[in-house]
Amino acid sequence: MNAIENVANVAKLDIGRESRRSVPEMIFAEGKSHDDLLAICKRMLEKNGRVIITRLNEQQLDELQNQFKAYHVQIFPHARAMVVRRKDYRGLQTGGRVGVLTAGTVDLGVAEEAVMIIQEMGCQTFLEADAGVAGMHRLIEPLKIMIENDVDCLVVVAGREGALPTVVAGLVDVPLIAVPASSGYGYGGRGEGALMAMLQACSLGLAVVNIDSGVAAGVVAAQIANRVARARAAH
Amino acid sequence: MNAIENVANVAKLDIGRESRRSVPEMIFAEGKSHDDLLAICKRMLEKNGRVIITRLNEQQLDELQNQFKAYHVQIFPHARAMVVRRKDYRGLQTGGRVGVLTAGTVDLGVAEEAVMIIQEMGCQTFLEADAGVAGMHRLIEPLKIMIENDVDCLVVVAGREGALPTVVAGLVDVPLIAVPASSGYGYGGRGEGALMAMLQACSLGLAVVNIDSGVAAGVVAAQIANRVARARAAH
Amino acid sequence: MNAIENVANVAKLDIGRESRRSVPEMIFAEGKSHDDLLAICKRMLEKNGRVIITRLNEQQLDELQNQFKAYHVQIFPHARAMVVRRKDYRGLQTGGRVGVLTAGTVDLGVAEEAVMIIQEMGCQTFLEADAGVAGMHRLIEPLKIMIENDVDCLVVVAGREGALPTVVAGLVDVPLIAVPASSGYGYGGRGEGALMAMLQACSLGLAVVNIDSGVAAGVVAAQIANRVARARAAH
Amino acid sequence: MNAIENVANVAKLDIGRESRRSVPEMIFAEGKSHDDLLAICKRMLEKNGRVIITRLNEQQLDELQNQFKAYHVQIFPHARAMVVRRKDYRGLQTGGRVGVLTAGTVDLGVAEEAVMIIQEMGCQTFLEADAGVAGMHRLIEPLKIMIENDVDCLVVVAGREGALPTVVAGLVDVPLIAVPASSGYGYGGRGEGALMAMLQACSLGLAVVNIDSGVAAGVVAAQIANRVARARAAH
Amino acid sequence: MNAIENVANVAKLDIGRESRRSVPEMIFAEGKSHDDLLAICKRMLEKNGRVIITRLNEQQLDELQNQFKAYHVQIFPHARAMVVRRKDYRGLQTGGRVGVLTAGTVDLGVAEEAVMIIQEMGCQTFLEADAGVAGMHRLIEPLKIMIENDVDCLVVVAGREGALPTVVAGLVDVPLIAVPASSGYGYGGRGEGALMAMLQACSLGLAVVNIDSGVAAGVVAAQIANRVARARAAH
Amino acid sequence: MNAIENVANVAKLDIGRESRRSVPEMIFAEGKSHDDLLAICKRMLEKNGRVIITRLNEQQLDELQNQFKAYHVQIFPHARAMVVRRKDYRGLQTGGRVGVLTAGTVDLGVAEEAVMIIQEMGCQTFLEADAGVAGMHRLIEPLKIMIENDVDCLVVVAGREGALPTVVAGLVDVPLIAVPASSGYGYGGRGEGALMAMLQACSLGLAVVNIDSGVAAGVVAAQIANRVARARAAH
Amino acid sequence: MNAIENVANVAKLDIGRESRRSVPEMIFAEGKSHDDLLAICKRMLEKNGRVIITRLNEQQLDELQNQFKAYHVQIFPHARAMVVRRKDYRGLQTGGRVGVLTAGTVDLGVAEEAVMIIQEMGCQTFLEADAGVAGMHRLIEPLKIMIENDVDCLVVVAGREGALPTVVAGLVDVPLIAVPASSGYGYGGRGEGALMAMLQACSLGLAVVNIDSGVAAGVVAAQIANRVARARAAH
Amino acid sequence: MNAIENVANVAKLDIGRESRRSVPEMIFAEGKSHDDLLAICKRMLEKNGRVIITRLNEQQLDELQNQFKAYHVQIFPHARAMVVRRKDYRGLQTGGRVGVLTAGTVDLGVAEEAVMIIQEMGCQTFLEADAGVAGMHRLIEPLKIMIENDVDCLVVVAGREGALPTVVAGLVDVPLIAVPASSGYGYGGRGEGALMAMLQACSLGLAVVNIDSGVAAGVVAAQIANRVARARAAH
Repeated sequence: MNAIENVANVAKLDIGRESRRSVPEMIFAEGKSHDDLLAICKRMLEKNGRVIITRLNEQQLDELQNQFKAYHVQIFPHARAMVVRRKDYRGLQTGGRVGVLTAGTVDLGVAEEAVMIIQEMGCQTFLEADAGVAGMHRLIEPLKIMIENDVDCLVVVAGREGALPTVVAGLVDVPLIAVPASSGYGYGGRGEGALMAMLQACSLGLAVVNIDSGVAAGVVAAQIANRVARARAAH
Repeated sequence: MNAIENVANVAKLDIGRESRRSVPEMIFAEGKSHDDLLAICKRMLEKNGRVIITRLNEQQLDELQNQFKAYHVQIFPHARAMVVRRKDYRGLQTGGRVGVLTAGTVDLGVAEEAVMIIQEMGCQTFLEADAGVAGMHRLIEPLKIMIENDVDCLVVVAGREGALPTVVAGLVDVPLIAVPASSGYGYGGRGEGALMAMLQACSLGLAVVNIDSGVAAGVVAAQIANRVARARAAH
Repeated sequence: MNAIENVANVAKLDIGRESRRSVPEMIFAEGKSHDDLLAICKRMLEKNGRVIITRLNEQQLDELQNQFKAYHVQIFPHARAMVVRRKDYRGLQTGGRVGVLTAGTVDLGVAEEAVMIIQEMGCQTFLEADAGVAGMHRLIEPLKIMIENDVDCLVVVAGREGALPTVVAGLVDVPLIAVPASSGYGYGGRGEGALMAMLQACSLGLAVVNIDSGVAAGVVAAQIANRVARARAAH
Repeated sequence: MNAIENVANVAKLDIGRESRRSVPEMIFAEGKSHDDLLAICKRMLEKNGRVIITRLNEQQLDELQNQFKAYHVQIFPHARAMVVRRKDYRGLQTGGRVGVLTAGTVDLGVAEEAVMIIQEMGCQTFLEADAGVAGMHRLIEPLKIMIENDVDCLVVVAGREGALPTVVAGLVDVPLIAVPASSGYGYGGRGEGALMAMLQACSLGLAVVNIDSGVAAGVVAAQIANRVARARAAH
Repeated sequence: MNAIENVANVAKLDIGRESRRSVPEMIFAEGKSHDDLLAICKRMLEKNGRVIITRLNEQQLDELQNQFKAYHVQIFPHARAMVVRRKDYRGLQTGGRVGVLTAGTVDLGVAEEAVMIIQEMGCQTFLEADAGVAGMHRLIEPLKIMIENDVDCLVVVAGREGALPTVVAGLVDVPLIAVPASSGYGYGGRGEGALMAMLQACSLGLAVVNIDSGVAAGVVAAQIANRVARARAAH
Repeated sequence: MNAIENVANVAKLDIGRESRRSVPEMIFAEGKSHDDLLAICKRMLEKNGRVIITRLNEQQLDELQNQFKAYHVQIFPHARAMVVRRKDYRGLQTGGRVGVLTAGTVDLGVAEEAVMIIQEMGCQTFLEADAGVAGMHRLIEPLKIMIENDVDCLVVVAGREGALPTVVAGLVDVPLIAVPASSGYGYGGRGEGALMAMLQACSLGLAVVNIDSGVAAGVVAAQIANRVARARAAH
Repeated sequence: MNAIENVANVAKLDIGRESRRSVPEMIFAEGKSHDDLLAICKRMLEKNGRVIITRLNEQQLDELQNQFKAYHVQIFPHARAMVVRRKDYRGLQTGGRVGVLTAGTVDLGVAEEAVMIIQEMGCQTFLEADAGVAGMHRLIEPLKIMIENDVDCLVVVAGREGALPTVVAGLVDVPLIAVPASSGYGYGGRGEGALMAMLQACSLGLAVVNIDSGVAAGVVAAQIANRVARARAAH
Repeated sequence: MNAIENVANVAKLDIGRESRRSVPEMIFAEGKSHDDLLAICKRMLEKNGRVIITRLNEQQLDELQNQFKAYHVQIFPHARAMVVRRKDYRGLQTGGRVGVLTAGTVDLGVAEEAVMIIQEMGCQTFLEADAGVAGMHRLIEPLKIMIENDVDCLVVVAGREGALPTVVAGLVDVPLIAVPASSGYGYGGRGEGALMAMLQACSLGLAVVNIDSGVAAGVVAAQIANRVARARAAH
């Protein structure tokens, strides 16, 4: 039996058959022509009843909004992202709950990407912006909201020195996905400083995704929340 | 009201009161004298009935084993780590389940650190080593085991090109914590290559901890599994 | 005899006299004025009957197409490259066979550069795009095609985590030239992550060229295939 | 008048004539032979009545202690540093007050270097270790002490994610000198992560010295405190 | 008592109650729409009688100047920054004195940011540009001015090899805040060279802020000077 | 059909069935205990009649030589590597021919690793050391030897500025695998300078493996030569 | 005597009184407004009879050419640089001789900057472009010209793998100033690869300036040649 | 005529025939066994009457001193280097003059390597240590000595912030070779900070060699001085 023959055995496995479907496909608009983008969106709307589009520029965003007047269109302005649904489309409601915190308002674009994909994966989201550590008192109200809503997972976005996830993970006991944002300047300012800080975090209980990657954080957070929600629902 | 006065409001919150206790303290042995190390261990055994010690050298490991003959001692040889328990110590059993995969046998030290802390946080672990992508067929059996045991979270350790988490996350639907290992060589060989690859992973559904950080991966994985287990148990 | 005199001995060598000619000259269009570019192309067409132009912008591509209506013009749209031949030009046919795989459609530009130069060096090419490791099943059909056509060498292009060459080299036994693409983002996203991963690859049997360098990969792959083809033809 | 002649004008200036003397010379022991080290120390004791020695190894520390039994010897054990004074030596008392905070006990070596030089420059010091942000409550008592003693300047040492200076600078209004420590691990663990975080700090009111440089932080902090003290004393 | 409860104790502290107010809020204009920018400025003028705006582009600068004709408008042309005050606004006068030196005229933008915030924090400033070390004689006159005005703190801005702070700190005895400027080229030219040089400085008595960060330098310098001034005023 | 089911189709492929066997397993001695190492070697000798061991230290090398006196033992002294064969073991003879060049004698260790694995994969090797570009005349004789033996592939090892592969690829028409060696110093001296130079090479027709990776270069070179040899043999 | 008083002694030195004048001032046009640029040029023409302007954009170049029709204007098109002289201006003729070589035509801009400043410092220049090592034969004629003209110093510009200075320094015995050019791509392509290669060069007898710095290379080369010329002239 | 044939033409050149001989071979002792080292030294002594050995460890230095009692042995203690000459050996005296300056005493090892090779290439050297810029007055006397001896070239060694070459080049008019030393610490402390600073130097008239490379600096400096000396001697 050669190398390839061995691989065949994997076929007997049956991992994530249905759940895999719950990670929706997304359209990355950057660099796509209007016609191509429109064609792809229409094809996905036909197939799935819904299409998710990220990294649109101003013009693309306006054009698509015009094209899809017959649909339900949801805009995420800071992320320049968009979800279009057939009016009869029924989204998933899993019962998962994810909190999203940002250190500054400048990080809202990254946070909105996370919010969008988490919601499209069926979870409820709780977004609180501008909870940065330079003024610790700004952190209290947002954290209270997260705890009162008993979130299953936290996504925490921070640029600059990226200290917020460390501080939050030292105060709460919820799995935390940290997202470094490129909202810094000078040495380490394109997100490397925040990335290093999050990987070095003194607090335990957090893991990290790549710089500015709201989508990557959102998917893993939703997977965590959905697994919890399935256990809750299995009564 | 000044900056500090505002912070006081945080006192009304009640986050993670009991769960916080479930992240056990660990003793980092590196650079500690025998006497200091022994004293700390004894104090913790007295207080908690258990002590967890990481990064022991050969000599420290032997000495402590001799000192604690009256206790139940568990050795993690590749990680050079150790758990010492009073004979009447009853560990936590949460019902959480975590799978741990490594790309090579060289990564076992990192994996064992994760296994140790996950178990001490009350979860069951399933460890499969040497499932690397250079021979895809080696991956089948380990993945089958993970799925049959319905793990709540996966920890995947890989050095060199760090491709294993990407491949696994493309096949399963379980939240995945990726750990880059410093088991490479040359350009990018101290774990930066694996770290970059994991942060860049094409597959969605994974998050990353710092190079060689089995402990950081273990804690966040156990927090995920424990939250799922609590939901399961809440029937 | 001084340093320079010694060098004269090299003159007695006779390395690659005719084969050297098989690496065709290419015109790099970036930053060249229309007039300069046109003049160079015309001179090469006169001399060789063929000219190969890379890194054209949209406008240059349109202008040259108009100028060379009397010629046979072949466009590589993703690479923004072009081959112009006199209608009576007879290309080389060596019998070499090279397969070209990409991890994503975004890497087609790099792949097309490789395909172009491999064909102009006389080999047959087999291009399969979007065979990335995030969904292993997408890899099967492309690999089957490569094997059925018994390729002499593989060029594999991948951005992001750059895992495809490692996985492919673990499954086949053909010399493999890996090309990291700059199609990533965040930490390691300009191709360094993919480059590191390819240099660190657990699988043996692959070598690497610089980021986005379809031309460099194509030339070495064609040299390999052509050497095999010459051996086949020498019966 | 040529370039050099112009420089002569600087001679008319009279900058820091006496204060310059308040930055004491220090002996860096690393790599010095016992005989050389001893000779230098003796010469300085003769000249100044005091000698400050940094970066001693265990053996050097023991040997010098033996040699200087007739003197007043002060050891800084974590910093492996030492001040030797003639018994009749009268140190400077400026009235300046500097607080020194560390994130972890592992950073005590760096902090002690700062404390030593600040004291030798005539200031009072207040050292509080292990005030890290992973448990915000550990920060309260140390900060209270700093405020009650009305420190003129703060030195804050932190490794790993280096968040402590940002958090402290957000709570107090005292000039703050931040020192990144090399007490991290993995990506960014040799102090670069902490250095980046401190340079990127969201809070204003802090400046940074090089990794592990307790001496550099101490001197600038003492200069600040001494300038304040001189103003206080000028009544 | 849990982690959060402990934090409540911080409320009894009273750090920097009034002085904290002396760090004025600043508006970062980059990327803000005209309407948003105008609205924020108006709100701050109403609340505080003054607004400070940094990183304006040419157009924003012109537009705001037109809008605020009824106010006292101060422009910092190299920094593209602006302070707008109600005509009856009375700025703070603390008696603090800060000197600002630049190595080249190209560094004036960074220096002006520092000057602006230092003045708004109530200090007097003394700005001398183009005192670089390539011609040491150019340094004499500026240093003389600093000494004659008995500055409490120096801000020194330098790009390229960043040697000026080292040389100045070797000649004077005033706390010095060094600012690396991104005015270099080639290897290390985006300010990393200057940053490294300043962190490595042989002279003691200086601390560093991030690349191009006139504001960060200005705030810490003003805090130093203001603390000295308060001591002077406390007679 | 789910993701995993699709993978099963790969089983119908039949890639490299026999040739895959021609990449021999190697034992990496570094960090292995004497007993473990001996046990592994014996098991492989039993199974295959041959064992290849790399990165032995002096002591391991001596011990194994003593242990295997009944076998045919071949030492590669600069590489600290060893091949042990049963006396009746018959190695593969494919007819492939590979040339190996080094820039300096310091690079012989890397070159020997390549030679060893190429020979064990059945090819003939031609090794010429110290052909560096600092004295071009030293390059003539080695190149002549390569051409006279009509090598199918060249492996070129160089540290420092790594120019040799560029120069050689500009003179010959044989596929070239370049190996950067860590035999440099200062900036770029751990092989990054040579790696960059080889990836940037002006000459076309070369590909690169990781720093010091004689094994990786040897395997891909042998695969190339063996494919040519099979074509030659297929008459 | 304090620190500053000591500096006064330097005034007795008399270094480079007249020669210092031979390094002409240059105007860096980048980022200067037309009016500012024109004003500076006119002032320098008045004072010195000559002005040297570097890094002009197309428009600036055209405008200045128009403005200075009454002067002798010399354009360096690849460097986008310009020398304007009053018609009666008599340049320096020192008798120094400097050769300038480039690896590719793409490096001509850097080379022209060097040529310009070398000529303005009174030396004769010999420029040969496109002498790269990918085809060693292209190097012969240029080197012959350098030797026949008995140059006192060589400036060698190369991008990509930066091998040319190493090869040339191995063949000639003239002090060589190497200039890395940013004409590469991918890993190490912004000149770092070439810079590393030149600093690592196996050949002795060369020193390096920063990436793309034709001016820095030109000045040091002219200083060398002029010192030789003065010795020749001193008969 | 093929590529190699063209190279033959280089043979007609006659570059540096005799001068090339003036760059003496050196023995790099690091990693060489006692027997090998001794054998090489003896062979060179026989051939040339002189041998130069660098990077000796303590033991090698002692052993060779013992072996060569019958010879004239010159030790460079900080560089751990050695020149052994037959008693009748007559060194070259070219009349070239080179000054060598160091910023600190810690840089003496690098400086001595330069001094040794410069002397062996026939020049007179003038070494002044500890002329660093932290105290500008320490620079005066050394510079005076350089000027009074009318040196043809300066070698300037500096670690840490590497400012000395910039300052010196701004004061004198002699070609200057700067050597970054790895005598720093923390960020940029292995010589990269000094290297960047020297490449970015505001002053013109200097070029740089690799970190700690006293030999590379010495050879190029001696070549410059020797060319000047030949011109002086040609009367």
